[in-house]
Amino acid sequence: MTYCLAMRLKEGLVFCSDSRTNAGIDNVSAYSKMHRFSVEGSRHFTLLSAGNLATTQAVVKKLRTDMTQSGPSLRTVSTVQEAVDYVGVVNALVQRQQAERDAAHTNFEATFIFGGQIAGQKPEIFMVYPQGNYIHESREHPFLQIGEIKYGKPILDRVVSPELDLERAARCALVSMNSTMRSNATVGPPIDLLIYRRNVFDEGRFLHLGEDDAFLQAIGQCWSEGLIQALETLPKFSWETAADTQAVSHVYPFPPNS
Amino acid sequence: MTYCLAMRLKEGLVFCSDSRTNAGIDNVSAYSKMHRFSVEGSRHFTLLSAGNLATTQAVVKKLRTDMTQSGPSLRTVSTVQEAVDYVGVVNALVQRQQAERDAAHTNFEATFIFGGQIAGQKPEIFMVYPQGNYIHESREHPFLQIGEIKYGKPILDRVVSPELDLERAARCALVSMNSTMRSNATVGPPIDLLIYRRNVFDEGRFLHLGEDDAFLQAIGQCWSEGLIQALETLPKFSWETAADTQAVSHVYPFPPNS
Repeated sequence: MTYCLAMRLKEGLVFCSDSRTNAGIDNVSAYSKMHRFSVEGSRHFTLLSAGNLATTQAVVKKLRTDMTQSGPSLRTVSTVQEAVDYVGVVNALVQRQQAERDAAHTNFEATFIFGGQIAGQKPEIFMVYPQGNYIHESREHPFLQIGEIKYGKPILDRVVSPELDLERAARCALVSMNSTMRSNATVGPPIDLLIYRRNVFDEGRFLHLGEDDAFLQAIGQCWSEGLIQALETLPKFSWETAADTQAVSHVYPFPPNS
Repeated sequence: MTYCLAMRLKEGLVFCSDSRTNAGIDNVSAYSKMHRFSVEGSRHFTLLSAGNLATTQAVVKKLRTDMTQSGPSLRTVSTVQEAVDYVGVVNALVQRQQAERDAAHTNFEATFIFGGQIAGQKPEIFMVYPQGNYIHESREHPFLQIGEIKYGKPILDRVVSPELDLERAARCALVSMNSTMRSNATVGPPIDLLIYRRNVFDEGRFLHLGEDDAFLQAIGQCWSEGLIQALETLPKFSWETAADTQAVSHVYPFPPNS
């Protein structure tokens, strides 16, 4: 399985991805699912991948190779929309080639999040379907997810808005990833995190966080403690009068760090 | 769809269920999925249901009818384990009857959470599979879920332990339900919440919370604000020095109530 997400904020873009791949539960590997295609000073693109590993590797390879050739590529496209359309074409093409070679009916599907900025234009993010078509985020839904999306969605639904600054949004992405890793063993570290600041046109701030990374562990630990604090702020039931609450607290003390 | 959950705590049991049923997206109704079978002073049982509505209604009807007859029933079973085994037999029997009547290959499956206490014994909760078999909770995993379980699981994973008191656990269940309703439109109010205190053998404290219920709305609102506060407590990235943070805060003020 896989979990990748991206956010479009007023300040720029945040991308986050896990690295676990598996062909059956007894064949687990680690591959980065984050791929950057930047031209320093003029354009930044990041691709996050989910699905068939051979397909995603072939797509990434073709995107990179095309950038060194004279034909259309991420170096030549004139808008992010044109770029994602090109990625969709490559995705569909690779799958068709693999299906034609295959005697069985294997699932070669791959899904991508693709985003970036070209100088003079605004940053954008898209989700590319296996069919080669794509959707973009919206003001009301400023994030996109692929793979195992459910466990990590509630925190995004409640907190992410375009006004959120890049660092807070990035911490929110790490929390979403941490929640997903706790619940689904096929999503796992290292975690790749990329923070791209609007109009900078560099490769972005990139963090590669392994399982034992102290920062990643601190995020998970602090978040659990924060949730317990948040639970304390919720309204009490009508029968929990001040007197009752004290009595209950006395008999069953709530461990603040459990 | 459906979302139901139950927790076993040292103080007792918590049950929570939504009420939305749908046969296709254009045929949505509200049915309670929480069913209580108590014998005042000696035994308390609660059943939460997911799956084929005709199956779950037939199962509930048979459990109730059996209690008025002379044969085995929730009135006669001598342990909670014996009770859940009986529920599993009834579930499998009802599905077999419906499948035999059916000319097509319809899915009549239903899944249940079943729990309670018999005087002199400890409270227990079980999940009953469509096949009629069942599992119980554990010290490490003191809650059970059926239906749309993923959105509401991270909060349970991080917060619920057997030591949590009943009211805090019940608030946690409402948060888990609220998160699920936000993300999946086929899970919806009214929400049924039941808090059963160990060794009391009554029907439990029961709340039926409609969509416009002020308490339910306050839980959702306070939780969103609590998450934003929790996000503030997370460790900062290495490049966010005190000076940098101030500068960023100045340019992009973070809205505390957004």
